[in-house]
Amino acid sequence: MVDARGTQDPWLLTPGPLTTSMTVKQSMLHDWGSRDAGFIAVNTRMRERLVAVIAGEGQFTTVPMQGSGSFAVEAMIGTFVGPKDKLLILVNGAYGKRMAKICTVAKRQHATLEWAEDMPVDPALVKLALARDPAITHVAVVHCETTSGILNPLAEVAEVVAASGRRLLVDAMSAFGAIGLDSGKVVFDAVAASSNKCIEGVPGLGFVLCRIDALQKTEGNAHALVLDLFDQWQVIEKTGQYRFTPPIHCIVAFDQAMSEHAAEGGVPGRGGRYRNNCRILIEGMRALGFETLLPDHLQAPIIVTFHMPVDPNFKFQDFYDRLRARNFVIYPGKLTVADSFRIGCIGRLGQTEMKAFLSAVADVMKEMNVTSGASARKAAE
Amino acid sequence: MVDARGTQDPWLLTPGPLTTSMTVKQSMLHDWGSRDAGFIAVNTRMRERLVAVIAGEGQFTTVPMQGSGSFAVEAMIGTFVGPKDKLLILVNGAYGKRMAKICTVAKRQHATLEWAEDMPVDPALVKLALARDPAITHVAVVHCETTSGILNPLAEVAEVVAASGRRLLVDAMSAFGAIGLDSGKVVFDAVAASSNKCIEGVPGLGFVLCRIDALQKTEGNAHALVLDLFDQWQVIEKTGQYRFTPPIHCIVAFDQAMSEHAAEGGVPGRGGRYRNNCRILIEGMRALGFETLLPDHLQAPIIVTFHMPVDPNFKFQDFYDRLRARNFVIYPGKLTVADSFRIGCIGRLGQTEMKAFLSAVADVMKEMNVTSGASARKAAE
Repeated sequence: MVDARGTQDPWLLTPGPLTTSMTVKQSMLHDWGSRDAGFIAVNTRMRERLVAVIAGEGQFTTVPMQGSGSFAVEAMIGTFVGPKDKLLILVNGAYGKRMAKICTVAKRQHATLEWAEDMPVDPALVKLALARDPAITHVAVVHCETTSGILNPLAEVAEVVAASGRRLLVDAMSAFGAIGLDSGKVVFDAVAASSNKCIEGVPGLGFVLCRIDALQKTEGNAHALVLDLFDQWQVIEKTGQYRFTPPIHCIVAFDQAMSEHAAEGGVPGRGGRYRNNCRILIEGMRALGFETLLPDHLQAPIIVTFHMPVDPNFKFQDFYDRLRARNFVIYPGKLTVADSFRIGCIGRLGQTEMKAFLSAVADVMKEMNVTSGASARKAAE
Repeated sequence: MVDARGTQDPWLLTPGPLTTSMTVKQSMLHDWGSRDAGFIAVNTRMRERLVAVIAGEGQFTTVPMQGSGSFAVEAMIGTFVGPKDKLLILVNGAYGKRMAKICTVAKRQHATLEWAEDMPVDPALVKLALARDPAITHVAVVHCETTSGILNPLAEVAEVVAASGRRLLVDAMSAFGAIGLDSGKVVFDAVAASSNKCIEGVPGLGFVLCRIDALQKTEGNAHALVLDLFDQWQVIEKTGQYRFTPPIHCIVAFDQAMSEHAAEGGVPGRGGRYRNNCRILIEGMRALGFETLLPDHLQAPIIVTFHMPVDPNFKFQDFYDRLRARNFVIYPGKLTVADSFRIGCIGRLGQTEMKAFLSAVADVMKEMNVTSGASARKAAE
């Protein structure tokens, strides 16, 4: 059935790609020349707007990177962490681990500090690690680890890193645009994110907001031509154009998404809607017996991990398929510490959709003859 | 004015991104979960169809690569040319030079054989070079160099490479889907192309068609995690899913573009329309006095380079702007050997648009008070 959006597409309760507005998608119904003035103007505006999201005017520049968010993260690491530098990676989930893998492949010296997936990174331990290893020049942290949905204490980590004279790189992928990040208050050299998370564009573009005076020192660092943020920046600054064909339709859609983000009140407005979605989701799921992995004070309003119910009638694939038939797409778990699944709160959806989703979950549980969402953990208490 | 396409977008007479059909763009009006069965089915079909374009069923596999065509080319080089291998790059334009730059940044041993931009690569010289340097393990060649629009003798190069026991990598970017390439007749290990050239999709996806038994030997070669074709292939084969978020809307549009490519009669049909476009363009421009860089037998029906007219009233930016005002976007030159500009024959346009373009050129010449498109070269004869 075609709904108010003008489509019958499923609602994507995932960490992205996510549900976007019809107006964002409709902006892709045009062709643009990549070297034509019209597209260059759109691209320039997009770059400026992204800098404004972190209040970085004059200090930061946006370097777009074709591909997904991971392309932007690898470009950030390869460009900022030179062959003689050493990166300390704070790991409490798959995205931290991915940064370590990037370093291994890109041949960058690195060390990791690891926590369980349901624990935030600990700035005190970061401080100790930095004191112990003077070879470390940079630290990398994930703002919201979508493995679990946990919010890491970015400001506190940034303080420790700055106090020790090291440089900070941030993977803010799933938090950017919904959770505040003020570059005037939190010190970092670069933050990577992508088009298809909280700004609610379509996938195809990553970007790195780079501190200009740090970026200026990165010439020749990159381990791959296409991932060289310094070179990409130089050419875009000089010509307004990309070195290599940009994903034009995705960029035009992203510019429209930035307009809609601003119209919603920017980061506070967007974040407010997501926090409301998250609260409705967690309260409703708890009422059905489900348990969140994280205590509320560690939960980012992006994606929520739920323990798998102990009820033997609960089969995840069946649960997924029945929700899918009701037009809701959820997400499998990615945890190593516990059997789980995930439900996202982001994208072009609000309380109406979250409540409709909860009704669908209740219906599906009845159909599956599952009396409670309680997990083995709860049952064992 | 809204035209038959339902838009007033300019006609893009460029080497891509190019004019796409409205149906291709409309296929982007939906959101898909990247791990959902519907999208996985589209992606699988797209991969199979691409293999069929080179008649590579059973021997080849499609490894998609997020980003532009250059991302696919760098991934191809980094994955197939190992740290102990050596690549001979045949250079007669900017895209050959770019492969050399990729090797420098990626730290791959390489040598180049260079020709002027208006000369095709010469298989006899390739044979000599391979005989002289036994360290060379791979050869890379550009099928159609869009720097000039020249068609390189790919089949003859492939013969020489195979006869010398070396492996061939092909950058077929602007030729793929319009100029035949039969993997049963031309021997190569990999060919790279992208979504926004002759298949007439939107930009955002590159891909490499890889000979499976060669790809199997590339584990651990790649110089960047996101550019690792072996790893990308392994994960897609096992799960149907991407390692990192795919550009979903672009892929769905590309699948639609593949349907339209097949409906037009595949490579012969698509190539036939482009050859007709090219013939009309060249005949019409010559009638206005313009001269092509290349003799007809070296010209690929993709993009045509014209010498800059000698008439002092001809200013390229003015010419460009006046054509742009008439809804035609042309392309600046990229040659080092001569002052020139380029006009593409590819994309969703046919003889009606090519003839309308020629009228526009004639009108603009009158407005600019340019009596002939003849170049200094012609004038000097």
